[in-house]
Amino acid sequence: MTTSETREETVLEAVGKRRELVNDAVPEELPVARPERLYEASRYLLDAGGKRLRPTILLTTAEALADVDPLSVEYREFPTVDEDVGEIDLMGAAVSVEVIQSFTLIHDDIMDDDDLRRGVPAVHQEYDLETAILAGDTLYSKAFEIMLETGAEPSQAVEALDVLANTCTQICEGQALDVDFERRDDVVPEEYLEMVEQKTAVLYAASASLPAILMGADDDVVDALYGYGLDVGRAFQIHDDVLDLTVPSDELGKQRGSDLVENKQTLITVHAREHGVDIDELVDTDDVEAVTEAEVDDAVAHLETVGSIDYANDKARELVDRGKDRLEVLPDNEAHDLLDELADYLIERGY
Amino acid sequence: MTTSETREETVLEAVGKRRELVNDAVPEELPVARPERLYEASRYLLDAGGKRLRPTILLTTAEALADVDPLSVEYREFPTVDEDVGEIDLMGAAVSVEVIQSFTLIHDDIMDDDDLRRGVPAVHQEYDLETAILAGDTLYSKAFEIMLETGAEPSQAVEALDVLANTCTQICEGQALDVDFERRDDVVPEEYLEMVEQKTAVLYAASASLPAILMGADDDVVDALYGYGLDVGRAFQIHDDVLDLTVPSDELGKQRGSDLVENKQTLITVHAREHGVDIDELVDTDDVEAVTEAEVDDAVAHLETVGSIDYANDKARELVDRGKDRLEVLPDNEAHDLLDELADYLIERGY
Repeated sequence: MTTSETREETVLEAVGKRRELVNDAVPEELPVARPERLYEASRYLLDAGGKRLRPTILLTTAEALADVDPLSVEYREFPTVDEDVGEIDLMGAAVSVEVIQSFTLIHDDIMDDDDLRRGVPAVHQEYDLETAILAGDTLYSKAFEIMLETGAEPSQAVEALDVLANTCTQICEGQALDVDFERRDDVVPEEYLEMVEQKTAVLYAASASLPAILMGADDDVVDALYGYGLDVGRAFQIHDDVLDLTVPSDELGKQRGSDLVENKQTLITVHAREHGVDIDELVDTDDVEAVTEAEVDDAVAHLETVGSIDYANDKARELVDRGKDRLEVLPDNEAHDLLDELADYLIERGY
Repeated sequence: MTTSETREETVLEAVGKRRELVNDAVPEELPVARPERLYEASRYLLDAGGKRLRPTILLTTAEALADVDPLSVEYREFPTVDEDVGEIDLMGAAVSVEVIQSFTLIHDDIMDDDDLRRGVPAVHQEYDLETAILAGDTLYSKAFEIMLETGAEPSQAVEALDVLANTCTQICEGQALDVDFERRDDVVPEEYLEMVEQKTAVLYAASASLPAILMGADDDVVDALYGYGLDVGRAFQIHDDVLDLTVPSDELGKQRGSDLVENKQTLITVHAREHGVDIDELVDTDDVEAVTEAEVDDAVAHLETVGSIDYANDKARELVDRGKDRLEVLPDNEAHDLLDELADYLIERGY
């Protein structure tokens, strides 16, 4: 049995190696062309960092499916399940997913009026509102262009594009629900989980299932991998909500407790409200600049007392376990093990 | 020889009939689903009107290619060039293009801080900034989803998606150039025409060439139709710039001369500057609410004196004539004639 710490080391090493390859591929897929300011703004968040968890899941799922050792085959010339079809550019698909992620972050930061992201100014702060809207729009179409160039069979490319477009639609729907929830005080856990599925988990589901689609795997494999992504993606978001309350602000890259201050719904607050907690009274201010660490500490203690943080942690664990079970469609190999460990890591990571 | 007035009648009747069909198809392709506010905002501009010129060009090009009488064949079950392939949903493709157009209008109105569009409040005014960004993003992915459901052969669907994605990228690039031009006073006509090609004409080019792609026409036909779209699309925008100066505000649906007031570059101002006119001095104010009709009249008189409006009109005519020549790849038929007349209409229309 791997302990949580050695597992974290294994996962971080695996993620780190793929991150380097993805980071090298980003400027290849998205060179700074004319108009330069537009492309610089489009690349700004991508170049500022990010763990590349979604590309890592995409690349590792492909390795598990193809039954090859991790990092043993060039991602740019990856074997498909049907040998007659030839190779596909799996790295392109991985970058496409990360580009979609980056587009949503740029537009979300405008909508949520967030000034910081990955420790640097949000794009609308570093540039301006117009450029940030346009940078997001550019990444949007670029993601489709990149996904169209994997060299997959046309029928599989069409299916991949359909998943990508559908994913984007659902992300928009989820973000709309999230914005709507800020104005409501009667959101129940099921609604919250539906919102998280649309806003966050579908892109994990796309990441896990797209390699199977592009490589020509059977539908039941595609569906199981999609389900894995939905489960671990929701778990990831729930854990993110826990981290927002428990990790020091300097490690978070933003004010701890900012979700509470900004009245954002999380599984924790939804549970707490159902258990009689007046969420609006947990912190006095609605200004993240004004909240004190002591106020956040008191709020967290209160949420722990009613069991809301345990509830969120339990839910995340349940989802991860179910997601791992779905991986039974994959052969037993090192990449499969890594996908298991990645799932655990998503809810054990400290930031 | 058709006179300009009877031609306008013919074109308006043809456009009007297709507009009705397109208007019926919009709610079919884009029903108001959950979250309702998001989809209502997404539909707001589409439902507010619009001539549907791009869908009309798409539908008519298909009729010319298939050599069928205008409006004689169901657009939802349209014959392809290769009879083995079966039918395609051409109306879906037409709606997809209009949905892209609507997405760009919503985001452009935010960027340009325009309050009115088609005589109604812009989406960010009627709703709010967050909803307008998200409505545009939703239309973006929906356009791809709709285009993926035409029933075309996968290889042709992939090509169509590639054109659509590439079109969106170019529209973003063109909009970025347009924003950039507002800060510059040394833009030359070639740069302006490049910007207009990207910002406006590529969607006309997509509209004219997509039916050929989906129907499996030869590459030279696709290329010629794309060229037709680029030419008439640029002419359309140049004529739009002329109309901004010459059509009464109540017919325009916005203040006449607003481009001048807001310091927007047009082929007219770029030409005038090259001929010694101080564009910044043409109107005193930079507030569209404050400008008077007399000020706009004086500015227009000045621009006429140096020949800038004639120059723009001549350029638009030259482009339309070249575009019509490109249609020689099409069979001689009624739909072909209508595409000729549509091209003329684009630079003869009064609003």
